Formats: sequence, structure tokens, C-alpha cells
Amino acid sequence: MKVELVNTGTELLIGDVINTNAAWLGQRIVELGLQVERCTTVPDGRAIRDALEEACGRADIVIVTGGLGPTSDDISREAVAEVLDLPMELDAGTMQFLTDFFGKRGKPVNEHNQRQAMKPRGAEVLANGNGTAPGLYFPPALGAGKGLHTAIVLLPGPPRELKPMMMEQVEPRLRALLPSGEDRVCRYFKYTGLGESEISMALQADLEAIEGLDIGYCLGKGDVDVRLSGTAKALAVATKICHEKLGEFMISDDRRVLEQVVVEGLTAQGQWIATAESCTGGFIANRITNISGASQVFGHGFVTYANEAKTQYLGVPAELIAQHGAVSEEVAAAMAAGCLRVSGADHAVAVTRIAGPGGGSPEKPSGTVFVALASKGHDVEVRKRWFSGDRERFKILTSQTALDFVRRRLCGFGLPE
Amino acid sequence: MKVELVNTGTELLIGDVINTNAAWLGQRIVELGLQVERCTTVPDGRAIRDALEEACGRADIVIVTGGLGPTSDDISREAVAEVLDLPMELDAGTMQFLTDFFGKRGKPVNEHNQRQAMKPRGAEVLANGNGTAPGLYFPPALGAGKGLHTAIVLLPGPPRELKPMMMEQVEPRLRALLPSGEDRVCRYFKYTGLGESEISMALQADLEAIEGLDIGYCLGKGDVDVRLSGTAKALAVATKICHEKLGEFMISDDRRVLEQVVVEGLTAQGQWIATAESCTGGFIANRITNISGASQVFGHGFVTYANEAKTQYLGVPAELIAQHGAVSEEVAAAMAAGCLRVSGADHAVAVTRIAGPGGGSPEKPSGTVFVALASKGHDVEVRKRWFSGDRERFKILTSQTALDFVRRRLCGFGLPE
Repeated sequence: MKVELVNTGTELLIGDVINTNAAWLGQRIVELGLQVERCTTVPDGRAIRDALEEACGRADIVIVTGGLGPTSDDISREAVAEVLDLPMELDAGTMQFLTDFFGKRGKPVNEHNQRQAMKPRGAEVLANGNGTAPGLYFPPALGAGKGLHTAIVLLPGPPRELKPMMMEQVEPRLRALLPSGEDRVCRYFKYTGLGESEISMALQADLEAIEGLDIGYCLGKGDVDVRLSGTAKALAVATKICHEKLGEFMISDDRRVLEQVVVEGLTAQGQWIATAESCTGGFIANRITNISGASQVFGHGFVTYANEAKTQYLGVPAELIAQHGAVSEEVAAAMAAGCLRVSGADHAVAVTRIAGPGGGSPEKPSGTVFVALASKGHDVEVRKRWFSGDRERFKILTSQTALDFVRRRLCGFGLPE
Repeated sequence: MKVELVNTGTELLIGDVINTNAAWLGQRIVELGLQVERCTTVPDGRAIRDALEEACGRADIVIVTGGLGPTSDDISREAVAEVLDLPMELDAGTMQFLTDFFGKRGKPVNEHNQRQAMKPRGAEVLANGNGTAPGLYFPPALGAGKGLHTAIVLLPGPPRELKPMMMEQVEPRLRALLPSGEDRVCRYFKYTGLGESEISMALQADLEAIEGLDIGYCLGKGDVDVRLSGTAKALAVATKICHEKLGEFMISDDRRVLEQVVVEGLTAQGQWIATAESCTGGFIANRITNISGASQVFGHGFVTYANEAKTQYLGVPAELIAQHGAVSEEVAAAMAAGCLRVSGADHAVAVTRIAGPGGGSPEKPSGTVFVALASKGHDVEVRKRWFSGDRERFKILTSQTALDFVRRRLCGFGLPE
């Protein structure tokens, strides 16, 4: 079955908004065992009609995002009515919803908003729990009069409205359209600490031997996703291989990101973590505190950009910094040990780096970073790494290394050299 | 003149990669005074040919990204040759470039890489300073044999290869295609602290009175861009209005983001800033340290998620927390004052918040945050704000408020109530 996306919105074409819906919907479609064959972005207004008609001529499922607002250039509803030759009618349920929605805010439903209660006859209304624009679903049979057999889905553009509507109301409808026997499962194995080629060398031969398994690799920032799709049986065999061969390097087999795995691991073991950051400037603490429940495992963080801050708050001796330099195995270790001591946490990570350009030396070229992990009952361990790229990329890769050390300790694995 | 984009890459359609090139190119095209009319994403392989031919039938300029790699499904070059009916030939200059490139790495140019030296006859080679795939430019005249008059640009997919090639080699060629007299300028005015409607109420009437000025508003996260395009003369008048009417709320008139303006302002005045963060979990420090030169203005940051950390490092009296709660005007003020004192900085910002769901009270509903600014020679000032949304959105809006307080102080404006 062929799937196409049509994204409407001038803001996407002039670059005011990055189209994240396309990637998110693309992932969801993969998880249904299908693939988006084309994605077309058009401005608000008339262009949507042409794009929709072309897509319906090629695809079995067309998902349209945007164009459901109250203004005159929001014409996704009318475009479908025109392409499928359906009359527009007022939907009483939606009208009631809008009346209640605006009533609570002490406002009447004005003429513009009333447009959102109109729908082509036969369309199924998809309730919107996070906004005023309902989505619509058109079963393939509605296009029969025009010789079309395409299922059409209209979704609101804002991600917080689109995502729950897709997962809760659209995916069950699309799944019902799939021919039986095509029930494929898709699973992601997220690894870190190895390159894409190292992972494929370790897994490829065994995975290729599994019948009907599709294998994809995607290099992220500091991690690699192995995407496998196939029958449930094929996936069960593949999952075993992915765990057995490279389990030590696996962050998750369910798309959870590293910070989530770390916060959940600490929570499960009732342990606390503290951070002492130089070059990452708060990014490690920020990643930890992006996870719900972080306050149960994280209480104390330091951004010791200046040398005196390392001494003042973490007790790193000024002589140690003078002797070895702020970016050294010794100072990183002292930062982690000091952070563990003053915070009273179970684990402390510390990072310190040669910032480029121009700050390096032959033994410590610009981009060199020391990552230290101190844990209660363990000796402090420090590893040297080298990362190129701009500040933001450097912060991602360094924080990934530090958080992975914590993951490894929680799992009982040693730190990689 | 009509512009279309064609993005190739299966990774974009299965959601492994978010298509940031489309938004970036969209902005660049706007700055040429044009607008992308359609953006089509297709998988690697044959689909590129159809998408290209359709786009050439509609547009004056077609920009293709991706499909220039060495593998067999990288067929952007061949697709243009087919659509414009041009023979493929080896480009000697590119071959020499590849021979040198691989020679330095001790490798021969293998058969796959050699494909990258092939080009349709007449295409102009766009050198790639950051990879092996050169871009190609096809002047409109090359399609005359097929009745097409479209300029076609082929760019590599990776942003770090695409961006400099677009700016340095493609834009001058596109600018030469524009009819004279259409030389329009585009400028962005970035505001914060006001809503989109407040900004448009203040500016719209005056801006609309300027002939030939296009006005757009784009709501960001914690800021609003007013995008103006028109002749240089119209822009000069509009710029004056934007500064005079709302200068106090203006972050920049050249797309610089708030953290950059703050770091540059501190640098210019030779002052230091320190941070004491609870709910933002290091995000304010992270934003500051994303800016090159941050180490000249920022040395000390605290992430005091736990109450004892507020007491231990910032000297906030435990009784004050017990009396008023950790989320209170009093504690925010004490955090900022303590942070200023222990760090020795010129300014200190502090934030503390009721995390939802369920932690609120009628006076301090969940989502309430106190933002404090302490500066040498000023009384500590605290403001109460309320932000809804998830953790990441909350961090953005709160950090925006805190950094804007610093911007205002540096500019000599008071803090908004």
C-alpha cells in the first residue's frame, strides 16, 4: 500500500518552521509496516487542492497536515470535498464542541470558527483534545464516485494536536485497511559507543540470514539506530541476536533515549547523580532534567566554566590545575570526586575540555575532552576522548559519553577504554 | 519567478532524519525576494526523475538536494541528464579533485567514487569544500532543446556541504537570473516580551502605509519575528518604525538570538554573569555557553534542583524555604543574591518553579515560576510568570525571560511587570 503526505503551510516553505511532522509521521507509518513514498509541501490556499488530487492519483493512503484553521486560506476540508465531489455540511457534534469550548471562555462561536464545524458528507470526525480544529477521516469508499479508492486523513498542523490524534484515532483505522498477512512489526535498537560500521560488522551476517527481515542503520548524534522490520517471528530471532552480540552497547530496544534510560536506572536503584561540567556548560544537567522524574535522582549540578569555580565549589586544588592544566585527567578526576563529596550523591560525572580553535597541544589537540565518573565504592575513572565539530555537536557527543558511563555502571559493565 | 525544492532521501521519508535543509533553503530563497512554491521529498532512486520533471514543468528554478553520493541509488545527475536530454561525460577537474582527495588518504578513486566525476554536458561544477560530491548548476538555456527554461541546481544533502555551496556559489547565479528592479531586501526584527497580536497592533498600521512592503509575523518559542521585505527604501522607513515603536522589546534586527545578544552585550561592557537554576536544570547556562566567547562573560553556574543545594551553595536560609516554599519570590531573590555573592559576577539570574502536575495552589498554580535578577549596584528584582506546556517548552520560555531581563539591564531598560 502506498502512502503519501501533503503538508500545507506557507511557514514551512519560507523556513519559519521546520517540518518535524513529516519525520514523525514517517516513523509512525514505518511502524505500521508501510513507507511514505512522497511528501509534498504546499502553501496555504489553492495549491493544496492540486497536491491532494495528484497524491490521490498515486497513493492508497494520503495524510494531509494543516489547513484546518478558521481563516479563509485554511481550505483542506474544501479541497477534499472538491476532489471527491462531496457536499459540505455542518457537523452538529463539532458545533456543540465549539460552542462549549468558546462558552467556557465567555465567547460566542464567531463566523470564522464556525467554518471548523463544516465537513464533507461522509467524513468521520476525529476529536481534537488539544485545540479547536477536529481532524477528518475519509474511508476509501467515499471516493468511489470519482473512481478513487484512497483513504484520506486530515490532521491539524500543531504537533501537540496532531500526534495524539494520529496515534489514537488514525492508526487503528489505517491498520484496519492493511491486507491480513502483511502484519509487520518494526523495532529500533539504539546503540552507543560503537560506529555504524562496527555495529553492522557485528550484526549484519546473522541478521541477513533471517528471512523477510528488513535492516536499516541510522547514524544519530552519539548513537546509532538499527531499524529492523519483519514478521513477529523474524523480529524475535533478530532481537535475540541484537541483545546477545552487542548488549553492552545497547541503550534501548524501544527507542528510549540515553537520558531516559539513565534516569530510570537510577530511580530503580534508588540512587542519585550529580554533575560537574566545564565545557558542556550545563547540557548534561539539562538532558537529565528533561526527563520526568529527574528530581528523584538529581539534586546538585555545577557549571564550573572558570578555574576558580572548580576550586571554590568542588575543592579542586588550585595547584593541581596549575600543574596539569584545567583540561587533564587529574583535574577531571578531582572534579568528579569533589562533586561526589559535596553533593552526597551516589554518582558524579565531570567533564573538562580543550576548547578550540587554538587552545591545543600535540598531546591534547583542540577538541580533547576528559570525562570522569566517580561512584560510591568505586575508584574514580577517567577517559580521554576527542570530538570535532561546533559547540552544540561537541556538547551532544560529550554528554552522551558521560551519560553512557553512568548507564554502564548501573548495568555492571566496565567503562570502555 | 517560481522556485521549487526537490529533496531526495529515503531517510527523510521514514523519519530517521528531520528535513532541516528545506527550511534553511526556504529562508535563503525569501532573502532573494522569492518564495518556494512547493517542496517535494522522494526516496532515493527512480522517483527523483519524475519529481524533477514535474517541478521543471511548473517552476523557473528547481533546487534538488541529495542523490549525489557514490552509490547506485544516487541518481540526481542522471535524472537531470534524462529530463534535459543531455549526454553524460567525465569532468576532468572533478576527477583530479577526487584523485587528490583520496590520494591524501592513501586510497585510489574506486569505481563508485568515479561516478561523482560524471556530469551532464554543459552543467557547471560547484566545488564542495566539505565533501567529495560536487554540486552542479544547469543554466536555463540547457533545457531549450526540450522546451524547458528552468534553472536546475543540484546540491549535496549534508547541511555542512550544502550551506556554503548555496551561499557562495548558487545564490550569485540565482541573483543574476532575477529581473532587474526586483532587487528586494529582506529583514527580520526579533521581539520578545510581547505577544504576536500586541506587536502587530503596534506596528501594522504604520507598516501597511509603506508602499511595496511585505509583512509577515512568525511566532517562535519565546519570541516573535517580524519579517519585512521590499525595496531598500521601503526597508529603511520600516526599520525606523520597528525601532522607534518597540525598541525596548527588540532582541535584534539581524536574526541574532537572545543568548548571542546577551553574551555580546556583556562582553562589550566587560561584565560577568552567573546562573542559579532550579527548574530550568542547566538550560540557561547551556544557552549562554552555546555562544562563542561565553568564557569571557560566564564562569559560575549552579543547578540547585534540591532544596539543600540552594542552602549549601547559594546560602539560601533553610528557614526561608520552610516559611515561603522553594517556589516563592523570597527564595528566588535569595538565590539570585547568593549566586551574585559567591560567584563575584556582575549579574546573577535565578529561577524557581512549581512543577506540574499537581504541585500547585490557588495563588501559585502549577507552572508558576519566579525569575530573579541581581546586579551589582541594584536591588534584586523578582517577577512572577506562568508558563504551560511540557518540560522543554517551559525551559525555553523561562530561560528566555531570564536572559531578556539581563538584556534589558544591559540596555538600561527596566524589567517589565
